[in-house]
Amino acid sequence: MSKDRPHVVIVGGGFGGLAAARALRRAPVRVTLVDRRNHHLFQPLLYQVATAGLSPADIAYPIRAVLRRQRNAHVLLAEATAIDAARREVVLKDGRLGYDWLVVATGARHAYFGRDEWEALAPGLKSLEDALEIRRRILLAFEKAEREPDVETRRALLTIVIVGGGPTGIELAGAIAEIAREVMKADFRAIDPTETRVVLVEAGPRVLATFPASLSTEAAAALRERGVEVRTETRVTAIDPGSVAFDGERIAAATVLWAAGVAASPLVTSLGAPLDRAGRLVVAADCSVPDHPEIFVIGDAAAMRGADGAPLPGIAPVAMQQGRYVARLLRGAIAGRPREPFAYRDKGNLATIGRADAVAHIGRLKLHGLLAWILWLVVHILYLVGFRNRVVVLVDWAWAYVTMSRGARLITGDIEPEPAPGARDDRRSALTAGTPAPVPGR
Amino acid sequence: MSKDRPHVVIVGGGFGGLAAARALRRAPVRVTLVDRRNHHLFQPLLYQVATAGLSPADIAYPIRAVLRRQRNAHVLLAEATAIDAARREVVLKDGRLGYDWLVVATGARHAYFGRDEWEALAPGLKSLEDALEIRRRILLAFEKAEREPDVETRRALLTIVIVGGGPTGIELAGAIAEIAREVMKADFRAIDPTETRVVLVEAGPRVLATFPASLSTEAAAALRERGVEVRTETRVTAIDPGSVAFDGERIAAATVLWAAGVAASPLVTSLGAPLDRAGRLVVAADCSVPDHPEIFVIGDAAAMRGADGAPLPGIAPVAMQQGRYVARLLRGAIAGRPREPFAYRDKGNLATIGRADAVAHIGRLKLHGLLAWILWLVVHILYLVGFRNRVVVLVDWAWAYVTMSRGARLITGDIEPEPAPGARDDRRSALTAGTPAPVPGR
Repeated sequence: MSKDRPHVVIVGGGFGGLAAARALRRAPVRVTLVDRRNHHLFQPLLYQVATAGLSPADIAYPIRAVLRRQRNAHVLLAEATAIDAARREVVLKDGRLGYDWLVVATGARHAYFGRDEWEALAPGLKSLEDALEIRRRILLAFEKAEREPDVETRRALLTIVIVGGGPTGIELAGAIAEIAREVMKADFRAIDPTETRVVLVEAGPRVLATFPASLSTEAAAALRERGVEVRTETRVTAIDPGSVAFDGERIAAATVLWAAGVAASPLVTSLGAPLDRAGRLVVAADCSVPDHPEIFVIGDAAAMRGADGAPLPGIAPVAMQQGRYVARLLRGAIAGRPREPFAYRDKGNLATIGRADAVAHIGRLKLHGLLAWILWLVVHILYLVGFRNRVVVLVDWAWAYVTMSRGARLITGDIEPEPAPGARDDRRSALTAGTPAPVPGR
Repeated sequence: MSKDRPHVVIVGGGFGGLAAARALRRAPVRVTLVDRRNHHLFQPLLYQVATAGLSPADIAYPIRAVLRRQRNAHVLLAEATAIDAARREVVLKDGRLGYDWLVVATGARHAYFGRDEWEALAPGLKSLEDALEIRRRILLAFEKAEREPDVETRRALLTIVIVGGGPTGIELAGAIAEIAREVMKADFRAIDPTETRVVLVEAGPRVLATFPASLSTEAAAALRERGVEVRTETRVTAIDPGSVAFDGERIAAATVLWAAGVAASPLVTSLGAPLDRAGRLVVAADCSVPDHPEIFVIGDAAAMRGADGAPLPGIAPVAMQQGRYVARLLRGAIAGRPREPFAYRDKGNLATIGRADAVAHIGRLKLHGLLAWILWLVVHILYLVGFRNRVVVLVDWAWAYVTMSRGARLITGDIEPEPAPGARDDRRSALTAGTPAPVPGR
C-alpha cells in the first residue's frame, strides 16, 4: 500500500469508528484504527452480560477480525491521551501517530455530576469489565444473603438500587427482577430470592424521557408488574457503603448501580473547542471541529442538533450514520467535491423491559409488549457483528427463554478481594457490609 | 429436612466433590458443598479458554445450578482454610462449619519446585482467571510485536515457551502454534505471525510420560509438524522477565507458561497425616485419612496406588470414581455395612495435539490421529455438565473448525495494568519487556 495516500486515523472502535473504517474500504487512503481495547463491543446488549444472560464473547468481537480483509486498514492497540492538532498528531501513551485526517469516535463514559467518590460505590455499565463487576456484585450479594441470619442485613444484601431511568436503567431493573424472581428461586436454600427488592430511581418526572409519554407510563407499569419499585422525581443525595439516600429517606442496599449520567471522553477536551454540559464537543454541520476541517468528532463524543432542533441522542444509529457520512465526505474531499451537511435519519427507538416485553417508537408508531420485543430482538441480532456471535447468542437466548436458567452465571475474580489502597477499600466494604456471619448447617 | 441426619461436608466442587455430592442425593444425610468459586470448572478444556477457542461460560457451570434439584444439598460459597479434626469442624475464612463426615476434594495447584518467584513470570493453568491471564499475555505479545520495529525484540515478543510436556503442555503448545500460524495470519499487517516460535520444554526423556512410548514419539512428531520445537531432557534453570534459561542456553521470550508441576492444596496439610512429594495426602485403601475414618481425601489431593502398584494419575475419572465410591461407602456405613477398598477402573487416557489430531491409550489400544481426536471430542462433550454448554461448545467448535477463526479472542483487563505492589510488578515487566516502541504508520 502506498505511503503517499492520505492517512486517516480513527480513534475508537465502537459503532461510529468501525462504520467509518469500513466505509473507507475502497477509498484511496491508509486507515489506522486506534483503540485501547482489542474488541468492538455491542453495547446495547451489555446489560445481558451484567445480568448473566450472555457471555462477554457473545457481544464482543476482535477489531482485527472485523477489519482483517480490509487491506487499507491497520489496527493499533494503544491508548490515545491527547490530540496535538497543531502538529497533526495523536498523542499515545507510548508514542505519537501522525494523521492527515482524524476521526474522533471515543464515545462516552459515566458522569457522577461532580460526585466522583460515588463511582467506586455505584459502578456504571460501559465496558465488559464493568459488566463483569456488576454481575459479580449481584451474585455475591445473593451468596452472602444465603449465609446471613440477621433479617435486616439480609434485606440490605437483597436490595439493588439502580440510579437512572433511561434505557440502560430500565433494562437492568427488568433483567435483575427477572433473574431474582424466576431464575435464582431454585438455587438457594436459606433465602427466598423473591424477597429481592429492586428500586429504580429517576430524577426526572418519568422513565424513558426520550420516548413518548404514553410509552413511559406503560414501561413503568410493566416494571412494577415485575416487582420493580419505580420512583420518579427522586434525586439521589448520598451514596455510602451499604446505603443510598434520597430526599428525606435512606435505603439500606448492598448493590447500587449507576445508569444516570454520561460524559464524553476527556480526549476531546484536548482539542480546545467548545463543549456542551456533558463534555461533548459541539461540532459543525459536517461533524468537523471549528477551525479544523481535517478533524471530525462523531457518536457520543459529539454534540449536534437534529432537524427539529433537539440534540441527537447518544445511540448506535447516530454514531454509525455519522461514521459513514464522514467516510463519504472524505472520499468526496479527496476528489475535490464540496461538503454537504450531515442529516440524521431517525429509524426509531427501542428499549426492552424483560422477557417478551419492550417498547418501540418508530415514526408515529408506538408499540408495547411482545411485538416490540420481537422487533427489538431481530434488530439487535441483525446488528451483531459476526455470524458466529449471532448463532451463539440465539442459542443462549432460546435456551434461557425455554428454561429460564442463566448459563453465564459465573463469578470470576476473588470472592473477597484483598484490600487494596484507596477507593477499592470502599468497594469492598459495600459488599461485605455487616458483621462476619456465622455459618448455618450444623 | 431433618437436622438429625448426619451432616456430610464436601470441600471442593470439582469432579470428585461434585460426583460425591450427586451420588448422595438419595442418602439419608445433609450435604454441604463448600467451594471458594461459585462454579464447577471443566478443567480438561481450560487450555481452549487460554487459547481463545472457548469462552469461560462454555466450560464452567454454577455449582448451585448443578445441585438445584437436590433437596438434601446446600451450597456454600466460602474459603476453607484448615480442618480442625479434633472438633470435627472445617475452619472457613469467616466462620466454622461442623461435620459428621468430611470429604476433602480440593484438587491441586501449581508447584514451582521451591522457585515460587517463577509463579508471576510463568503462570500456570488451573482456574478461569489463569486461563484469561494466559490469553491476555499471548494476545498482548502479538499486539506489541505488531508495533515493534526492532527485529530482536519482536522475535522475543513472538516467542512462547511452555514448561512441561504432559497433556496440558502438549495441548497448549499445539493450540498456540495453530492460532499463530493459521488464525492470526490475516489479522496482522506489520508482523508475520508464522514467525512465532513455540518451544515446549520437558525435563524427562519424553513428552506424555504416562502414555506408551510409541504414542509419545508420535505426539512429538505431530507437534514438530505444526512448528513446535520439542525439547526433552531439558531442565529450566532460570526464569527472568523476558527470558528463560536452560542448561547452557538462554531464550528471549515474552511469554512463559507453566505446565510442569502440581501440588495438593495446603488444606490437606492441616490434617497432620503423611504427604507424598507433591503434597498429596497418602490415604488408606478406602480413601480415608489415617486415624480418621470419618475424613476422606479424593482426587488430586489424595495419593493412592493402583492395583499395578503405580500411583493413580491426577485425572478426572479417578476423582469421579473416588467421589462415587465414598458416597457409596457412606451410605453403607450409615446402614452398618463394612467398608470395601476402592478399585480404580482405568477407562483410558487421551490427549489432544490440535485440530483433528490426538493420541488415545485405551487398554491395549493405541490410537493416533483423527480417530483419536473424534474420540476425545465425544468423550469431552459428553462429560460437560449441562446441556446448554454442550450446544454452545459444539457451535463454537464447529465454527472454529470451518473458518479457523477464534471468536473468543478478547483481551479483558487493562492493556497495561497499573503497577501494583509486589510480584505483579514483575508480571508487568515480563509483558512490556523492551523499550517503548515508536509507532509505524506515518
